[in-house]
Amino acid sequence: MNVFIVYAHQEPKSFNGALKDTAVETLEALGHTVKVSDLYAMNFKAIADQHDFTELENADYFKYQTEQIHASKHDTFTSDITAELEKLKWADFVLFQFPLWWFSMPAILKGWVDRVFAMGSIYGAGIGAYDTGGLKGKKSMLSITTGGPELMYSPHGKNGDIHENILFPIHHGILYFSGMDVLPPFIAYSVARDPAKREQYIIDFKKRLLSIDTTPVIPYHPSSHYDETMQLKPEFRG
Amino acid sequence: MNVFIVYAHQEPKSFNGALKDTAVETLEALGHTVKVSDLYAMNFKAIADQHDFTELENADYFKYQTEQIHASKHDTFTSDITAELEKLKWADFVLFQFPLWWFSMPAILKGWVDRVFAMGSIYGAGIGAYDTGGLKGKKSMLSITTGGPELMYSPHGKNGDIHENILFPIHHGILYFSGMDVLPPFIAYSVARDPAKREQYIIDFKKRLLSIDTTPVIPYHPSSHYDETMQLKPEFRG
Repeated sequence: MNVFIVYAHQEPKSFNGALKDTAVETLEALGHTVKVSDLYAMNFKAIADQHDFTELENADYFKYQTEQIHASKHDTFTSDITAELEKLKWADFVLFQFPLWWFSMPAILKGWVDRVFAMGSIYGAGIGAYDTGGLKGKKSMLSITTGGPELMYSPHGKNGDIHENILFPIHHGILYFSGMDVLPPFIAYSVARDPAKREQYIIDFKKRLLSIDTTPVIPYHPSSHYDETMQLKPEFRG
Repeated sequence: MNVFIVYAHQEPKSFNGALKDTAVETLEALGHTVKVSDLYAMNFKAIADQHDFTELENADYFKYQTEQIHASKHDTFTSDITAELEKLKWADFVLFQFPLWWFSMPAILKGWVDRVFAMGSIYGAGIGAYDTGGLKGKKSMLSITTGGPELMYSPHGKNGDIHENILFPIHHGILYFSGMDVLPPFIAYSVARDPAKREQYIIDFKKRLLSIDTTPVIPYHPSSHYDETMQLKPEFRG
């Protein structure tokens, strides 16, 4: 299997770094081929703008998605975007390793999504979205760390339910939208100052990585469950 | 009233640009003082890293939040962060104008949050969070545009409920977390190719801006509704 790890932490000695290293070692030991994009080490450009294209379709009225479609057709993305698109297309499994910042991705990773998950390459403009998205057939998974303890992220926790309220825009809106199946996330809660907890999380993470093939994906609705106005048909409402 | 508009679109002639201009004109006509951070025009740095501080507390193990606390104490943020922190502290009302990208903020705006909403200045390390956050007493509001139509963002829509599933991490996790009250968002759906719709949205937006003082804020739970494990007390569960 081809594995692509997208990793966003500034400090190689961090717990996020340790989780990333664990993933590389565990997956390579299983015989998989692993590529890593270490976004901070690459100094990956986060801001989506005019400089992402070697030519513009309309320099008088800049619209990012229009330019993404143009660049998808004419192969005029800058080389940093093309390189990431190639890794995505090569991958069977995409793993994201990052600390949850403000209940979302760090900006460097959000910028990677904004720039690489391009309209015309990954979705839309003749491709599709959700179960007809351009990355259909691939699996994805988040591996994240939090500052707060697990109870704060439970259904009645002060931060909101991490599955329903916090990770939904990433799981459903980015990963599933682009066509990928989404495995349940690996979440290491509140690990900042507890070596024993970190050690246990590393053991648990290895187990999760060993069972990628057998872990059921998050059961999002296929397009056939929605009517022509994109509303979930009554028979599928929970 | 002091109004701070944080604006994230590359194209001045865009509909986001028109909404931002409408906000400036409408609020100034009411006698308010308005400051705008036009993030793309400022080429605002999105990536949170070592270069955000004029000195580091621990260069051998870089942890962003630790350095934010240090910089908050010693006034050692870079000047771009300090300038935004000053505008935030000056403001009574903070308005965010941006296109919804991947069901969240464009990376340039997420980077603004990552870097400016600093631990030790806005929350934590002796300050607090939620209704004891550092921006307590201020109001905030999102004004966003979407690609998809409104029905796709309704409770049974294919994209998920925009209030419960999509904007919660921003509303509750960024704005309310930092202490601000949150007004219901202004959302212009699917405006890309419809001048009449755009005109109506501008009229509606003006009305919203004229009623900031009388519009009820989103009723999030105060800290007193949670028990010592940060779980919502049973009597407040819906």
